[in-house]
Amino acid sequence: MIVETKYYTIEDNIELESGRSLGNIQVAYETYGKLNEKGDNAILLLHALTGDAHAAGYHKGDSRPGWWDDMVGIDKAFDTNKYFVICSNMLGGCKGTCGPNSINPQTGREYGLSFPVITIGDVVKVQKKLIDYLGVKKLTVAGGSMGGMQALQWALDYNELVNRVIVIASTHKLSAQSIAFNAVGRNAILQDPNFQGGNYYHSKKPDKGLAIARMVGHITYLCQEAMQNKFDRRFQDKDTPSFDFGIDFEVESYLAHQGKVFVDRFDANSYLYITKAVDYFDIAQKYGSLEAAFKDTQAKYLIISFSSDWLFPSSQSKELCRALMYNKKDVSYCEIESPCGHDAFLLEYQTQTKIIASFLRSE
Amino acid sequence: MIVETKYYTIEDNIELESGRSLGNIQVAYETYGKLNEKGDNAILLLHALTGDAHAAGYHKGDSRPGWWDDMVGIDKAFDTNKYFVICSNMLGGCKGTCGPNSINPQTGREYGLSFPVITIGDVVKVQKKLIDYLGVKKLTVAGGSMGGMQALQWALDYNELVNRVIVIASTHKLSAQSIAFNAVGRNAILQDPNFQGGNYYHSKKPDKGLAIARMVGHITYLCQEAMQNKFDRRFQDKDTPSFDFGIDFEVESYLAHQGKVFVDRFDANSYLYITKAVDYFDIAQKYGSLEAAFKDTQAKYLIISFSSDWLFPSSQSKELCRALMYNKKDVSYCEIESPCGHDAFLLEYQTQTKIIASFLRSE
Repeated sequence: MIVETKYYTIEDNIELESGRSLGNIQVAYETYGKLNEKGDNAILLLHALTGDAHAAGYHKGDSRPGWWDDMVGIDKAFDTNKYFVICSNMLGGCKGTCGPNSINPQTGREYGLSFPVITIGDVVKVQKKLIDYLGVKKLTVAGGSMGGMQALQWALDYNELVNRVIVIASTHKLSAQSIAFNAVGRNAILQDPNFQGGNYYHSKKPDKGLAIARMVGHITYLCQEAMQNKFDRRFQDKDTPSFDFGIDFEVESYLAHQGKVFVDRFDANSYLYITKAVDYFDIAQKYGSLEAAFKDTQAKYLIISFSSDWLFPSSQSKELCRALMYNKKDVSYCEIESPCGHDAFLLEYQTQTKIIASFLRSE
Repeated sequence: MIVETKYYTIEDNIELESGRSLGNIQVAYETYGKLNEKGDNAILLLHALTGDAHAAGYHKGDSRPGWWDDMVGIDKAFDTNKYFVICSNMLGGCKGTCGPNSINPQTGREYGLSFPVITIGDVVKVQKKLIDYLGVKKLTVAGGSMGGMQALQWALDYNELVNRVIVIASTHKLSAQSIAFNAVGRNAILQDPNFQGGNYYHSKKPDKGLAIARMVGHITYLCQEAMQNKFDRRFQDKDTPSFDFGIDFEVESYLAHQGKVFVDRFDANSYLYITKAVDYFDIAQKYGSLEAAFKDTQAKYLIISFSSDWLFPSSQSKELCRALMYNKKDVSYCEIESPCGHDAFLLEYQTQTKIIASFLRSE
């Protein structure tokens, strides 16, 4: 399936949770399958921290497909013969949707840190404009990790539109530990001398800081067991210690590689804005409690967690389920046994396919 | 108890595992209590990553006691009425024992990265010189975290001298995940522009990198539950988000503070050398298996782990116990229920006191 990214620009100013507003917001998006006449077969996929609009298929000339290609396509979990599948790059991102690397029309220069700090609520507000523009009348929302947070936000903010919510390897709020990891990553970026207050677009980029942030992130995406299975204590390309401060172990080489490739594809400012939005995410805050938050929603929920995910552990998904059940909502929950840690949501597609396809078919 | 740090200089060259050698090694140490005539009531305390020789009592004018004062003194776990307690700063450290911040007598300048990469075996070899100098004939070795690694190394390398081994919140080898955390910390230091190849002693220090390393470390010393209990999602000195990239949450403030105070008391090069020694530590490697490693040791072992320690989880202590039991060694094991994570070895002193005092009394 050859696909291409399309662009839609929101003309109106969007009021943000911070009290600031933003205009002229370009949104990068892709669609797979066709919207039916009633406009009720749409599924919005919501990407994780560093994802983009390219969820499935191949861009012309590319050898690698979109980030959730295992799950999106004919006869896959999100079956494009049946559904109109949409994915957009999030507000604050760096893959075609307005973010800190976009040109501020008022200054003619990149926003940098003058870009407003955003929330998951703001991200969803922008997505809503796209969904209206596409003529969607009923919507399923689905996402893993931060994508799951957006799915929950959709259910609360646009209750009348959303009939199904799929939340995978996600949470209704970050723990102190998860905030701590994000804080370390942001510190590494902010303290890189090339960061220059966020104005690095025409000079050297804060690659070292961003790479360290990514390394920390990757430790949290895997888990103790996954790292052990993958690397154990094997030395990289040798059998004995080097007795210097180069790379000794395979796991060091893996992290260094992940850091290196990341800086070529991601913007450090976007990393700051997106992790901050994630830190702020807390469903209960506005409503007083998690139970109160879901009181008036009418959607059906599917919550999936993974046994070895320690970033957003199953206990958090269960807390979410309890709040939904307290409100007598229609909720299905599945904890998938997996040794893959948080990354499982991108890897364990076969088990997820069965569960999701069945959930989407259910009345 | 007013105490002071003493110094002993090893005249002989010490052959290191790397194949290099090191001469003129000054060792900073403290002692509490008195060595008996037979020389068999000595206990060597082995400090963790960033510890020093000052385990107990007060230095003149100080308001805070040594790092294990809760455990060392009259009627405490390590009872100074009964035992001659010794603690020394480790080789490679920066608190008075020879390390990368020491002056290389051959150049008249700080070693920096010309200091040889060391192992836990090298560290113990230097301690042995001190123990001989002090006239000790029989020795108990005890330590938490990296201190426990040294205790194990002592049991293997100086079997004839060691009659009791106390290993707390430690492991016989780091997991891939623990190596990964150390690698991130080292990267942050190595990539700080002030690091200057380790030659920063007469200019600005790589404080930003070292602070980030310490922040990462602190996340691993606490645990999910401990961080949640301590900070939850509370904002620092306010009730609402700041919508900027300053400190929002208490947990961010805590980490920033830990980073800040650490750079004033620790040397970045020492951090590199010590974490590398810890990464290399793997008891089984030299012997082929963990079981084989302990075959000929004659000491009694006490292994203590903490239920919420995820840096060196109980499973690793149990593995160690199994290898000792396989060899029919005298081993006691206790997993202490604690919500404090890895840090528990410094905090849960009351439970440890009972267990350790009883172990030391046993024949």
